[in-house]
Amino acid sequence: MQITFLGTSSGVPTRGRNVSSVGLRLDMRAEVWLFDCGEGTQHQLLRSDLKISQITRIFITHTHGDHIFGLMGLLATYGLAGSPTQIDIYGPPGLQEYLRACQKYSHTHLSYPLRVHVVEPGIVYEDGEYIVSCEPLKHRVTAFGYRIAEKDRAGRFNVEQAAALGIPSGPIYGKLKRGENVTLADGRLIKGSDLCAPPEAGRKVVYCTDTVYCDNAVTLAQEADVLIHEATFSHQDAQLAFERLHSTSTMAAQVALGAGVKHLIMTHFSPRYAPGNALMLEDLLKEARAIFPNTELAYDFMTYAVPRRLDRSLVTS
Amino acid sequence: MQITFLGTSSGVPTRGRNVSSVGLRLDMRAEVWLFDCGEGTQHQLLRSDLKISQITRIFITHTHGDHIFGLMGLLATYGLAGSPTQIDIYGPPGLQEYLRACQKYSHTHLSYPLRVHVVEPGIVYEDGEYIVSCEPLKHRVTAFGYRIAEKDRAGRFNVEQAAALGIPSGPIYGKLKRGENVTLADGRLIKGSDLCAPPEAGRKVVYCTDTVYCDNAVTLAQEADVLIHEATFSHQDAQLAFERLHSTSTMAAQVALGAGVKHLIMTHFSPRYAPGNALMLEDLLKEARAIFPNTELAYDFMTYAVPRRLDRSLVTS
Ligand SMILES: [Zn+2]
Ligand SMILES: [Zn+2]
Repeated sequence: MQITFLGTSSGVPTRGRNVSSVGLRLDMRAEVWLFDCGEGTQHQLLRSDLKISQITRIFITHTHGDHIFGLMGLLATYGLAGSPTQIDIYGPPGLQEYLRACQKYSHTHLSYPLRVHVVEPGIVYEDGEYIVSCEPLKHRVTAFGYRIAEKDRAGRFNVEQAAALGIPSGPIYGKLKRGENVTLADGRLIKGSDLCAPPEAGRKVVYCTDTVYCDNAVTLAQEADVLIHEATFSHQDAQLAFERLHSTSTMAAQVALGAGVKHLIMTHFSPRYAPGNALMLEDLLKEARAIFPNTELAYDFMTYAVPRRLDRSLVTS
Repeated sequence: MQITFLGTSSGVPTRGRNVSSVGLRLDMRAEVWLFDCGEGTQHQLLRSDLKISQITRIFITHTHGDHIFGLMGLLATYGLAGSPTQIDIYGPPGLQEYLRACQKYSHTHLSYPLRVHVVEPGIVYEDGEYIVSCEPLKHRVTAFGYRIAEKDRAGRFNVEQAAALGIPSGPIYGKLKRGENVTLADGRLIKGSDLCAPPEAGRKVVYCTDTVYCDNAVTLAQEADVLIHEATFSHQDAQLAFERLHSTSTMAAQVALGAGVKHLIMTHFSPRYAPGNALMLEDLLKEARAIFPNTELAYDFMTYAVPRRLDRSLVTS
């Protein structure tokens, strides 16, 4: 799982930061999942290591323009690149209608199936390896945070040891791999857990934007490996944050602390914290680290490979 | 009048070229007029010498995505920059509905008046100094080319000479300035034309995209100082041009020649003519110059100051 920040500014692009989008590359598949898609996301993808043709799913937090105005251009370009297969889009109500209107008035005929799913709190998507769930956040319009959880992987089955014990290969191996116990024809009881390394816990990435501090974010981010949380404002501008239902750096850190995450990456910064202003992004970082030390500031094209949880199957072999 | 190309690629952005937009800075006012607004136009403006806050009018040729997907983001950003006044948008039917749908689903509330004008062939806009007119082109959807004409300026009135002739200042000066003849109280007949430098002809800029070769483009571009014309394809790919109702470099040159323009700048190039392809943009340029030598290829951020027509008031004074 590798995270690439494609846009880290709130509201409007600046020379150095585009509006919101985050790409998540899945190690085990040639797949990219996108979270939000502000204007110019396809341009950022062109300048990144991610390929537009590898996008399979797009998760939208809310329909404010700085999170969706790049969708139509990206979808049109995806249809012209390589051999488009299908894109699934997940998001709040209104997204489907927005995309339909854009397609209608721009005469865009997509050459591939586009499926738009209206999300509700809970599980949004699941396959053999991942579960994506969402919870409502607290913003001026309906907004959802997303949690992407890798499923736990079974520990490696020790084939060599099984062979050395004289266990006949075949269906018995399958049972032992699943951790079941098996009584052999000769009467020996073999425990699957003795032949399997401990399972490896899946990693969890959580994406929370746009929102003011809310308990749902803490619930969603519970023990995540990485929490990506918006920090539009400095703690000193908390009044603005409450008025506009955005977070301060302090709120982001409080969510990280409350949820017991490993790592916090803040993003979605107001362009006001630029050199020349009394407050700069380094101040937001200091404010957050005072509460949650393992905090970083995102920047455009920053990549972060989420470390695998201790792979005990390697340690014990 | 200074032209800045903000995007010169057709259909999709590339690393070096964005999708369509052209800025026109008016010398005599702190105003920028925009022609088309593909996704990422506001980003290109940030990197150019033009200011988003100076935009007053936006002219849209047609509603294909690569010409309008940057509109909403730009309009939202304009509302947040400086002190927004008003924007007038001109374009084909459907544009108003597109913008309304985008505003609705993205919850965008513009803080300034936005007026959308549906254009019809003929005069689209006129003030004391400029006339903008349009003609339908030949594309897959309704598309208009635009002609921006500076009005002719009266030649300078020679105040010194009038004083030397003993002409009393006042209303008589006004008549003479307008080129009228006046009989003074002492019986002398004074011809206004003797006291005024010849008028200076206004400049004409014409923007034709997207279109296959069409006579309307020739009519619209008549004796323009600069014709900006799309050249999506090489002459060797003319079959594609006819199928998709786009122009080849040769068609652009034929329009320039037929209209007797001074200067042709080609734009809206298919990304296929990149290094590595059998054909490159230099080939499109050669094809065009064989027909119309005074041709150039646009590139992103290229600027062109349209030369004033021979200023005879300076020459004769
Ligand atoms: Zn928002
Ligand atoms: Zn078009």
